[in-house]
Amino acid sequence: MLKRYVPILAWLPHYHRRLFAADALAGLIVTAMVIPQSLAYALLAGLPAVVGLYASILPQLFYTLFGTSRTLAIGPVAIIALMTGAALSNVAAPNSAMYVEAALVLALLSGAILVLMGLLKMGFFSNFLSHPVISGFLTASGILIAASQFSALIGVESSGFTLIERLTTLLLNLSAFHLPTAIIGASTLAFLVLLRRYGKSSLRRVGLSLGLADLIAKAGPVFAVIATTLATWHWQLDSAGVATVGSIPAGLPPFSFPWSDASLWRALLIPALLISLVGFVESVSMGQMLAAKRRQRISPNQELIGLGAANLAAGVSSGMPVTGGLSRTVINFDAGAQTPAAGAFAALGIALVTFAFTGWLYYLPIATLAATITVSILTLVDFPTLHQTWRYSRSDFAAMAITIILTLVEGIEAGIIGGITLSIGLFLYRTSRPHSALVGCVPGTEHFRNTTRHDVETVDHVALLRIDESLYFANARYLEDTLYNLVASRPALEHVVIVCSAVNLIDASALESLEAINARLKDSNVTLHLAEVKGPVMDKLKLSDFLESLTGRVFLSTYAAWRELSRPPEIPEE
Amino acid sequence: MLKRYVPILAWLPHYHRRLFAADALAGLIVTAMVIPQSLAYALLAGLPAVVGLYASILPQLFYTLFGTSRTLAIGPVAIIALMTGAALSNVAAPNSAMYVEAALVLALLSGAILVLMGLLKMGFFSNFLSHPVISGFLTASGILIAASQFSALIGVESSGFTLIERLTTLLLNLSAFHLPTAIIGASTLAFLVLLRRYGKSSLRRVGLSLGLADLIAKAGPVFAVIATTLATWHWQLDSAGVATVGSIPAGLPPFSFPWSDASLWRALLIPALLISLVGFVESVSMGQMLAAKRRQRISPNQELIGLGAANLAAGVSSGMPVTGGLSRTVINFDAGAQTPAAGAFAALGIALVTFAFTGWLYYLPIATLAATITVSILTLVDFPTLHQTWRYSRSDFAAMAITIILTLVEGIEAGIIGGITLSIGLFLYRTSRPHSALVGCVPGTEHFRNTTRHDVETVDHVALLRIDESLYFANARYLEDTLYNLVASRPALEHVVIVCSAVNLIDASALESLEAINARLKDSNVTLHLAEVKGPVMDKLKLSDFLESLTGRVFLSTYAAWRELSRPPEIPEE
Repeated sequence: MLKRYVPILAWLPHYHRRLFAADALAGLIVTAMVIPQSLAYALLAGLPAVVGLYASILPQLFYTLFGTSRTLAIGPVAIIALMTGAALSNVAAPNSAMYVEAALVLALLSGAILVLMGLLKMGFFSNFLSHPVISGFLTASGILIAASQFSALIGVESSGFTLIERLTTLLLNLSAFHLPTAIIGASTLAFLVLLRRYGKSSLRRVGLSLGLADLIAKAGPVFAVIATTLATWHWQLDSAGVATVGSIPAGLPPFSFPWSDASLWRALLIPALLISLVGFVESVSMGQMLAAKRRQRISPNQELIGLGAANLAAGVSSGMPVTGGLSRTVINFDAGAQTPAAGAFAALGIALVTFAFTGWLYYLPIATLAATITVSILTLVDFPTLHQTWRYSRSDFAAMAITIILTLVEGIEAGIIGGITLSIGLFLYRTSRPHSALVGCVPGTEHFRNTTRHDVETVDHVALLRIDESLYFANARYLEDTLYNLVASRPALEHVVIVCSAVNLIDASALESLEAINARLKDSNVTLHLAEVKGPVMDKLKLSDFLESLTGRVFLSTYAAWRELSRPPEIPEE
Repeated sequence: MLKRYVPILAWLPHYHRRLFAADALAGLIVTAMVIPQSLAYALLAGLPAVVGLYASILPQLFYTLFGTSRTLAIGPVAIIALMTGAALSNVAAPNSAMYVEAALVLALLSGAILVLMGLLKMGFFSNFLSHPVISGFLTASGILIAASQFSALIGVESSGFTLIERLTTLLLNLSAFHLPTAIIGASTLAFLVLLRRYGKSSLRRVGLSLGLADLIAKAGPVFAVIATTLATWHWQLDSAGVATVGSIPAGLPPFSFPWSDASLWRALLIPALLISLVGFVESVSMGQMLAAKRRQRISPNQELIGLGAANLAAGVSSGMPVTGGLSRTVINFDAGAQTPAAGAFAALGIALVTFAFTGWLYYLPIATLAATITVSILTLVDFPTLHQTWRYSRSDFAAMAITIILTLVEGIEAGIIGGITLSIGLFLYRTSRPHSALVGCVPGTEHFRNTTRHDVETVDHVALLRIDESLYFANARYLEDTLYNLVASRPALEHVVIVCSAVNLIDASALESLEAINARLKDSNVTLHLAEVKGPVMDKLKLSDFLESLTGRVFLSTYAAWRELSRPPEIPEE
């Protein structure tokens, strides 16, 4: 029981030296790689850069205790940082103490929601974020982040969390264009793009092993950080106007608790809910994918608790909302992490840097960070899926397009909520007008097919109607209309058989409709029968009075109904 | 085309003397019967009594032009009056000019919404009000109305639109208990209840014809109104403190248009939407029921336009939101109305009373009106359905119970919105965890049944999995879990066949899951097949790349898959 909720108890007793060596190496690599991105994502959320470091220490340690994925690395990630910034800018002025405090409230709320969902086993809630909505949301967020980073790349201020706000402020401030910053930004960007595209194959060609070539290609951001930091320091570019990270207070993350009034907590509740959902979906799908590669399994409900604990830890250690990050997890996985201890070692590494070496980050240019974000988020933008979805299903495409448009134009919350609402609405609409077909007997067999598509036997006084959907409140009235129209259009009709092979549920509303249909068909001297009712559905019907009042019978198969009803009516003997 | 949107053009040219005689008589009877209830419902909404009369004139005439039901009678009804009062009390002080004006805004908004829904053919929206939610809402509203009328019956003030507010204010003011009022209220109530229960059979026993006995029993409220009005006038009980209708301005309804600011319109938008939905559902189900009795049909989308026109008319003629009323429609139907002209004659009758005879209503006691409302709304309270629903389906019962509790405790809007949300949520939850079964061949047949329920043939290296639900985003992950668990638990497995006989849809999310399943099963050396894929679903799959990457085949029937895959693997010859 305890092992289920504190998974570390399951693996720590079996920990040994070989695992330690692998994990420690992975932790070291992750430490070096994630420092620049942690700083960058904090800046993306409009928070001081050091918050990104704080959010990579205690949250990761807590996830190590409570999480089930062996390789997931926890910290600030691009999408969550963007969502955090959008939420905070609605409740506080940028760069204010209130803004930083609101980030803590958001982390605590989001942690509490995740833990609660985990304890109530409500992980299935995330299923309502459909693939098209997620994919559309990631594409739109990628565009928004790229737009926000573009201004940092050229040293121009911009603000806002919709594309229009962003572009407007960018254009208004364009006169502040700063050439040295733009040179650093553009050259870093070019370096990273080239390294990503050609680095691995070129390094292989000069004779490096696959693993080493891969590692060097992935370490591009670290080289860029070191090179531009040294250049800025050497030429003292910060006094020439190149924005740098500047002085970061050294020391471990201070304890924090946001003693704000209730109105701030209330205002951040919906954003926290969305951040939790998106963070969970992103983290758990990645965790599942990587676990599958090594034939391990993760428990989605326990993951909720792990991520919740991480966010609560972020809230009390001056951090910001966190989740499992794609790039840091892939680095961890590729670097050979074997257990969650690797994440803990990385957290200790970052803690060490935060404690003693923040001075080394003083000359790190913001433009370098912007270039690393831009390169990593461009993988989110996925136009081919848009085209595939269009081909496959117009309604899935509609959900995706609405998510993208609303996210860009109205903002992140509107995008997600609109996308979810539309995809649920479209599903309900579809099930509210179910496909139905009059079927007839394929000659010489016991099979029944659609009369309009196949050459089948029918008789005038019997209609076999197959309904291809569960019967529930949203289509109950449609069922009535379908049957009344059928009866009205076929004067010779004596028997109607509803074929229920695809009916997985008959709810109370549909039952009432069936009762009404039965009564009205009786008035018209038409007998109502059912066929192929599934076991669970039949069990339910037996609890109601419907079967007693049914004018016809319940046949086990369509064929049995056909054999019985299609015979010419017997003429009673005098 | 014009006839479709203005149905009066279809029947008026064929109008003749015999129809006129029947309609005129029905109109006269309805006039006498609905005046007391029109006054009462206006008071229930917290509006001046005369508003109820105004709302019974022009709206009915407009419905005659645009409606499709031949017998529906339009005017203020109990539920809509209750909803109106609850909505108005949120935006204006009772008895203020603003309050009356807000009622007009509500009628205009609700009319506009209905007309728009009609033009866009969005009548299906009302399907999302499931039977349990409607039934629960009517029961709770009946209780709320009874509580509100009880105070008028005993001459005590009370206010509020939740049960607690109502009962609290009632208890606080209980010292104002007024004996003469209570005597009028109690005796009227007793008279109406006894007449309703025993009136018809007693009158039959003394030799009256069925029709006459029925009419007299139904006219009970009219007798009560006349008797108590005369008594109050004779003994001048109004100066003894019995509340009466008092002086009503004589004259036709004045033209009105609420020139309020936009904030009032915005605040009333959601209430107007709910009033439109509830009014439409109530009206259209009654219209359909009565049309069916005479083998006529009504068009739900045109009904939206008819009811919308009626509400717009109410908004510009000093009225209040209206819909097809149950009691007035039944009276009209039973009195022999043949065409919508009967409603028009009733409207003209009420106009005549409003124009010249409002003085006759001066001494009508409010307690009498309260008694007539109480008796008529008690038919809404339906506890047996609660019990039946509990027996039939726990989730339908949950939706019903939540609707009742929220309506009583939190108010009408919360009740409806909560009920709709919960019933949609429960449906989605159910479809997100679909029933699935491993099936096997019934020996000697081509039939396949659940392996846990029936004695069927199976082999270790083939699993036939039947999924009883459409595959879509909410159950895509569940599908993955089901299949991975299946493969993990059966080491000898070589082939998995998903039997799709109950799958009516595979959306983009489920398609992605199928692709993931296919890839992961391939890694485990298990081949994935599909069987019994329906035509429309197969058409869609052909648009994607899934069928090319599928490791196995798509079989037409489960039997074909079984015959092919269950053979022992051939040993290749050397």
